[in-house]
Amino acid sequence: MNSSIKSMLVLAALSFVVLLAGCGGGEPDDTAAAGPPTAQHKNLFGGMPKVMESADNPLTDTKIALGRILYYEPRMSISGDISCNSCHLLDEFGVDGLATSPGHDGTFGVRNSPTVYNAALHIAQFWDGREPTVEAQAKGPILNPVEHGMPTAEAVEEALRGIPEYGPLFEAAFPGEEQPVTFDNVALAIGAFERKLVTRGKWDRWLNGDGNALNVQERRGLDAFMDIGCTTCHMGPNLGGSLFQKMGLVEAYPMEDKGRSEITGNAAEMYFFKVPALRIIAETGPYMHDGSIESLEEVVRIMAKHQLGKPVTDQQVTDMVVFMKALTGKLPAEYIAEPTLPGM
Amino acid sequence: MNSSIKSMLVLAALSFVVLLAGCGGGEPDDTAAAGPPTAQHKNLFGGMPKVMESADNPLTDTKIALGRILYYEPRMSISGDISCNSCHLLDEFGVDGLATSPGHDGTFGVRNSPTVYNAALHIAQFWDGREPTVEAQAKGPILNPVEHGMPTAEAVEEALRGIPEYGPLFEAAFPGEEQPVTFDNVALAIGAFERKLVTRGKWDRWLNGDGNALNVQERRGLDAFMDIGCTTCHMGPNLGGSLFQKMGLVEAYPMEDKGRSEITGNAAEMYFFKVPALRIIAETGPYMHDGSIESLEEVVRIMAKHQLGKPVTDQQVTDMVVFMKALTGKLPAEYIAEPTLPGM
Repeated sequence: MNSSIKSMLVLAALSFVVLLAGCGGGEPDDTAAAGPPTAQHKNLFGGMPKVMESADNPLTDTKIALGRILYYEPRMSISGDISCNSCHLLDEFGVDGLATSPGHDGTFGVRNSPTVYNAALHIAQFWDGREPTVEAQAKGPILNPVEHGMPTAEAVEEALRGIPEYGPLFEAAFPGEEQPVTFDNVALAIGAFERKLVTRGKWDRWLNGDGNALNVQERRGLDAFMDIGCTTCHMGPNLGGSLFQKMGLVEAYPMEDKGRSEITGNAAEMYFFKVPALRIIAETGPYMHDGSIESLEEVVRIMAKHQLGKPVTDQQVTDMVVFMKALTGKLPAEYIAEPTLPGM
Repeated sequence: MNSSIKSMLVLAALSFVVLLAGCGGGEPDDTAAAGPPTAQHKNLFGGMPKVMESADNPLTDTKIALGRILYYEPRMSISGDISCNSCHLLDEFGVDGLATSPGHDGTFGVRNSPTVYNAALHIAQFWDGREPTVEAQAKGPILNPVEHGMPTAEAVEEALRGIPEYGPLFEAAFPGEEQPVTFDNVALAIGAFERKLVTRGKWDRWLNGDGNALNVQERRGLDAFMDIGCTTCHMGPNLGGSLFQKMGLVEAYPMEDKGRSEITGNAAEMYFFKVPALRIIAETGPYMHDGSIESLEEVVRIMAKHQLGKPVTDQQVTDMVVFMKALTGKLPAEYIAEPTLPGM
């Protein structure tokens, strides 16, 4: 063996050792700080507002306080025991943890009850976006025969007018109105309250520039989330809720629910649903429009396969779920304790 | 040098030669047949209907014929010389080739006039989706001060009622109505006509299973289009028009137009526009909501950068543009020749 070949072989052996060392000893420390966000992150996710404002429903303390009471009010249901908080429990991240929710007579709806937290920021409400705002949304379940089951708006007004303690609360919230105890005002008050239901946490601190707020694994999950293409739909401060997308885009997803096309009658929107927001997704299972999937890991795999047609490794799934858990912020504690209801 | 080392070196040299041959001599034949589509392609792009039906506006021959005449009717403009066909030229793929279009007094609009072909399939009309259907859309430009400039619906009705030859045409299209010459019926007739403006071509033959209809390069462009993630928004039979998306999603795109949020008032839709359909994109430049980009190659690069944050090679851009050219179908010839206008 001549010396040049010998030295080449030595070099190769050395490279191999270095390579091994790189693979073995150089494992990234998943708990180290992720470092600051980039301009791309800030552009993609934007900032979460403190309050989700409305040009049509100015927020006042009295209106918000009334809305909070009405949110917990079971006398706006035909059975007298269903309130907004029955299915959207404020101390449970705004959900009931069920696939679908039972109404006043125990009949279950067909779609999963989504969280009320951060919901006012969505482009529209309900899975199919059939109402534009939280104010408009608030009326739906109260009159829905399998939810609160109130027969008419007038029946709601009659029920509330029968509780004299409500009068001053509505008068304070809607000053100058001759008869403020109306179904429209119920919706405005509940909507105003819901506009305060914002969650914030370390994800927001990270987006604001605190490079220590996320760790390396969470950041790796975010990188995978972006690389695979999840952010094409799950963008903005709510990581979703900004657009409608077809479920089963790349690979058909077996389901009977036709989604948004049932509302719009437009074939181009067959199987379209509002893209769910991920801001507190780790706490708001089960998942999908019908609550059929228990595990977040499984949803991530379903999304990669059916929505993006992209392979994902086990490590990527793990990292993405860790990232999603890092999104969970603090609930606004001041609204969670059940208020004293008028006349009760 | 011992024999085992010698043979290893020979093997390495041979591998190198094989590798070179693979790179050089094995060039794919870009003009060969692409082969048939997969289930994924069919699911992603679906089938283009022959007619874009409407549950609210049943299509009849008399209504379509009237709509075709009205489409070319300049007397529904204050200057007497602007018709739908002034900006959406049917013999020019439904566009005027300008960045933005001049109205009755030469004032230009602020957004690019999109093609009318295949438009009825969109989830909504206009760049910001402010009207739900082609019927609702048809009214907008007629009353827009910088387009047709008609002051009121009544003025349109007066103009058409002043042309006695229109009476029987409206009566035939809207039988049984006492006064069928109405602005609402104008919109229904034009909408009905537009629902026939479908383009079809080799892309459709390919999707229907003809593996010879696309060639290898076109298919490679489609593969890149899907791999990069374009199909997350440009899906369905129209390769777009199914959802609203933020322009500058990954990297902010400098522009003043706030898009859909100007209509909805919802901050979550800031810079959102309807995703343009690509079915005849190669013929409908210039591009973007403001018509600011001349070349399709440049748009592809802008989209990859600002919407997806993905690097693209020159070859990928070339292939994707070749793919988009392959989408261009035949115009429905029977509607293109200008009809004889009543009383002219």
